[in-house]
Amino acid sequence: MNEIKLLNTVLPGLRQGADIFVGPGDDCAAIDIGGSELLLLAADQVVSEVHYLPDTAPAKIAGKLLKRNLSDIAAMGGIPAHAILSIASSRSEQWFIDFYRGLAEVSAAFGVSVCGGDIASLPESYDRAGEVASLTITGKVTRQKLCLRKNARPGDLLFCTGCFGNSFNSGHHLDFMPRLDEAAFIAGEFTNAVIDVSDGLLLDLERMATASGVDVILDCSTVPLRAGADIHGALTDGEDYELLFAVPREKVEKLERNWKFEQTGVTCIGRFAGHGAGVIYDMNNNNLSEKINKGYEHFRR
Amino acid sequence: MNEIKLLNTVLPGLRQGADIFVGPGDDCAAIDIGGSELLLLAADQVVSEVHYLPDTAPAKIAGKLLKRNLSDIAAMGGIPAHAILSIASSRSEQWFIDFYRGLAEVSAAFGVSVCGGDIASLPESYDRAGEVASLTITGKVTRQKLCLRKNARPGDLLFCTGCFGNSFNSGHHLDFMPRLDEAAFIAGEFTNAVIDVSDGLLLDLERMATASGVDVILDCSTVPLRAGADIHGALTDGEDYELLFAVPREKVEKLERNWKFEQTGVTCIGRFAGHGAGVIYDMNNNNLSEKINKGYEHFRR
Repeated sequence: MNEIKLLNTVLPGLRQGADIFVGPGDDCAAIDIGGSELLLLAADQVVSEVHYLPDTAPAKIAGKLLKRNLSDIAAMGGIPAHAILSIASSRSEQWFIDFYRGLAEVSAAFGVSVCGGDIASLPESYDRAGEVASLTITGKVTRQKLCLRKNARPGDLLFCTGCFGNSFNSGHHLDFMPRLDEAAFIAGEFTNAVIDVSDGLLLDLERMATASGVDVILDCSTVPLRAGADIHGALTDGEDYELLFAVPREKVEKLERNWKFEQTGVTCIGRFAGHGAGVIYDMNNNNLSEKINKGYEHFRR
Repeated sequence: MNEIKLLNTVLPGLRQGADIFVGPGDDCAAIDIGGSELLLLAADQVVSEVHYLPDTAPAKIAGKLLKRNLSDIAAMGGIPAHAILSIASSRSEQWFIDFYRGLAEVSAAFGVSVCGGDIASLPESYDRAGEVASLTITGKVTRQKLCLRKNARPGDLLFCTGCFGNSFNSGHHLDFMPRLDEAAFIAGEFTNAVIDVSDGLLLDLERMATASGVDVILDCSTVPLRAGADIHGALTDGEDYELLFAVPREKVEKLERNWKFEQTGVTCIGRFAGHGAGVIYDMNNNNLSEKINKGYEHFRR
């Protein structure tokens, strides 16, 4: 099944109230709750055998689940606040205790209150040890800092944080740090156009370019590679949880001069070209969008 | 696995921020967002073969999922606002389209904006057609109307809406109406102590009694039975999505005189007795709490 095509079919049928400032289709919804700050809402799931191997330590799974959601808050320029956990599983009581311990540790580290949730059984026909876990995150963002994937403009330069590829074998997909601090630094000051890379650099860049109605020229030679990654993996592996963002030319010099995160690289990897359908080209004018696996399914195996 | 025991073990480990007015353990969390209204947050899941038969119409499944959550908002005396859907499934594209159509219809009927979510694959080892779907609901409630399960007082009378038992075979578990209007009528005016019955009258009543630190005397002869139900089913079947609420004696006459919901009965089925551990007795002083299946697992079969 093609998730993107499906969402394009079903999302227009969902009626949005007048308080919905940003509806379905970005990293989070943004809701006008009457003050200077918008309420951010998003959810993301992890499924055993799809997002990690079934024998992964439960505390790591819980951490990944929460951090995936924190990455969505970062992509909106926001600050995380609360989380709600749903989990359906046939695991042992000890597995759950370890899972919640991991969730408690990571949520405390990021100042998130896990304030509710639901536990359900999996049917007996699901005879493997496994689970489906979903977490809903809330956050806050001032209107001036709000970052949307549709806000890239022709002529903006394309920047990324960190590096890409080989996330699964390197363990990055469990141990990554959501780019909340980096997002707070750039949001409103250097950019209002951000997306986080969970499904692969090309696929998420295409989402950003399509939403913005601009084509992109990607300089593949500048894409930072994670140890063990080649450029193909860096463009398509996914689970990087880095940020892509658009910076107007006049702000580039100041961004690079003031970047203060020694552990996190910031790299210009291309530029947004003219208005268009959101096609990604390489420096030789080859169409990279055609290489994207649109039915991306994480580590499904 | 015993869900209640597990939650008692893991929930204290989750640190709650200063803005958490009501944390884990009630039907929703209630969050202080600075205004006169509290933000309500809750999540509930449906799992095929656990909460419904796998061949159930997808629009009905979506409706059930949303309405389960609306019932939690009702139990807090709140008004629903937004929803976020997560679904992991290996169903066909047409199944998803039908599911979202059902979600769109029910959410529009209740004024809820489904403003985000996530779709994931199930692993190939899960070879049955099925899904795990989780929905997070938000709502609003004024502080004066906020209803908590811990607010029952000795001497209060125990009321219920509607009737109980035989939910699965009657189709009630799919076709029920969340008691939002009834909750808005009673909240703050006649009660601030409400719980909704999803896991069985006895089990949810025991939760309310335990949270309130009062014992209960339940007059089983007065419990309204759904067609086809006997008293045992009414007490333990679950999936009734009715409200239990505590009413101070001096408000009972006015409640019964002003009750305006012709389609929904309101019945006094017992009373809260003295301070205690939350034990439920029948009129002959038999301990009913001992009959509760604490490891309630809905329609798992």
